[in-house]
Amino acid sequence: VDLRVVLVASRNPLNIGAAARAMSNFGFPCLRLVNAYEVAFREAKSAVGAGAVLETAEVFGTLENAIADCRLVVGTTSASHRELKHPIWRLEQGARLIRRHAGPVALLFGSEKFGLANEDMDHCHWLLRIPTRAGHPSMNLGQSVSVCLYELIRGRGASRSKPTPSASASAEELERLTVSLLDALEKSGYLKSPTSGSMTGKLRRLIRRMNLSTRDSTLLQGMVRQILWRLGTRQD
Amino acid sequence: VDLRVVLVASRNPLNIGAAARAMSNFGFPCLRLVNAYEVAFREAKSAVGAGAVLETAEVFGTLENAIADCRLVVGTTSASHRELKHPIWRLEQGARLIRRHAGPVALLFGSEKFGLANEDMDHCHWLLRIPTRAGHPSMNLGQSVSVCLYELIRGRGASRSKPTPSASASAEELERLTVSLLDALEKSGYLKSPTSGSMTGKLRRLIRRMNLSTRDSTLLQGMVRQILWRLGTRQD
Repeated sequence: VDLRVVLVASRNPLNIGAAARAMSNFGFPCLRLVNAYEVAFREAKSAVGAGAVLETAEVFGTLENAIADCRLVVGTTSASHRELKHPIWRLEQGARLIRRHAGPVALLFGSEKFGLANEDMDHCHWLLRIPTRAGHPSMNLGQSVSVCLYELIRGRGASRSKPTPSASASAEELERLTVSLLDALEKSGYLKSPTSGSMTGKLRRLIRRMNLSTRDSTLLQGMVRQILWRLGTRQD
Repeated sequence: VDLRVVLVASRNPLNIGAAARAMSNFGFPCLRLVNAYEVAFREAKSAVGAGAVLETAEVFGTLENAIADCRLVVGTTSASHRELKHPIWRLEQGARLIRRHAGPVALLFGSEKFGLANEDMDHCHWLLRIPTRAGHPSMNLGQSVSVCLYELIRGRGASRSKPTPSASASAEELERLTVSLLDALEKSGYLKSPTSGSMTGKLRRLIRRMNLSTRDSTLLQGMVRQILWRLGTRQD
C-alpha cells in the first residue's frame, strides 16, 4: 500500500514519536503532520528508533494540502456511529479496501483529546473503526496507529511463517522410545512383568500424544537408556 | 479467552499504563505484574481510562507464581528465530491457538529494554511474534500489547459490522435523476437537443457508477430540480 499516515493536531511529542515508531516497525515510512505544535514535533524526533520516519516527515498547515495527492482518504474514529454521516468500516474490512486500492492512500488520525473534527471527516471517503469495547472505545494514539498498520500488513509473507522447523519424530523413533521406557518401567518395578497389553497401549498412546520432535525423542531415549543401564547395574 | 496479561520487569509507568489502557479497550481485564518497580506501578495508576484494570492488577515476586494457575503460557518476542529453542508462531496463527484454548492463558511481555529473558521463555509452551519489519523488529511495549489483544478479538462480532446502512437508491430513483439531469443539461445548452443516444448512455452509466444511496439521490434530485426551475424562469 502506498500509504501516508496523517496526524492531525497531535499535541503530545510522545504520541508522535510512538506513531513514528509503529510506522517504522511495520514498514510505512511516510508521515505527515497537520497543524502540529512545532515543539512537540521537535521533541518527538528523539523517539527510539523512529528517526528515519521523523526526519522525512512533512508538515502542513491544512489538511487539504496534506492529502492533496491522495486518491483515497480514510479517517479513523472510535465512535461506532457518529450520526451516520459517513460510511464506517470495521478495521478488518477497511484494511482490505485500503490494500486493494491503487493510488496513494491517506490514513488520518485526530488529536489525542478530540479525535478528528467533523470538518476533517468531510474530506474522507469513509471512516475506519478499530473494534474496541463499547465501554471504553477511545484508544491511545500510538496504539491505534500500531493496530491499524498491523492490520494492513497482517498475513503478508505469512506463508513463510512456520513454527520451529524441527522434524517430528518418526514412528520408528517413537516405538524405540516406547520399548525402552516399557523396559525401564518393568526393571524399576513400576510395571509387573510380563507387561499387560492395556498398559503397553496406554504408554504407546501417551508417547504419541506428546508430539515429540526427533531431537526430543532422541533426548528422552538417551535418558531412558541411562536409567536402564543404572537399573541393570543395580540388579547385577 | 480467559487471558492474563503478564508484564515481566516493566520499568516505565507510562508503558504499564498504556498496556492497561489497551487491555481495557479490548476487554481483557486481568493484569499481572512480575518484579515491577513499585513506583512505576503506582504512577501507572493515573493512566487515562485504565483505572479498573490497574486497580485489580496483581503483583508477583516471581514469574512461576504469576503463571501458576495458567494452562497455556505464551511468551512474546521480537526475534524471529532466537536460536530456535522454542517454537515460534506468528501472531495471526498464535492468536488462533490461544482462542481455541480452554484453560487460563498467560501472555507474557518482557521488559522494554531486553524483552523476556531466556529463563522466562523456558516457562512458555511457545512464543509469539508480531510480524514486524526485519530492519526494526522491536516494538513499544504498550503497542505490542495493543496489537496482540487486537488480534485476539479480531473478527469477533464482525457480522454486526456493516458500513452505514443507508439503502442504495432504487433503479427508479436513479433513472428519475438521470432524466432530470439530461433535461437540465439540455436546457443549459450543455447538450444539444435532441440529445444523442451515446451521451444519454454515458450519463446513465456515470450515475450508476456513483453508487448513490436513496438519500444522496434525493439530495441531488432536489438540486437538479431547482436548477431546472431557474433555467426555466430565465428562458421564459
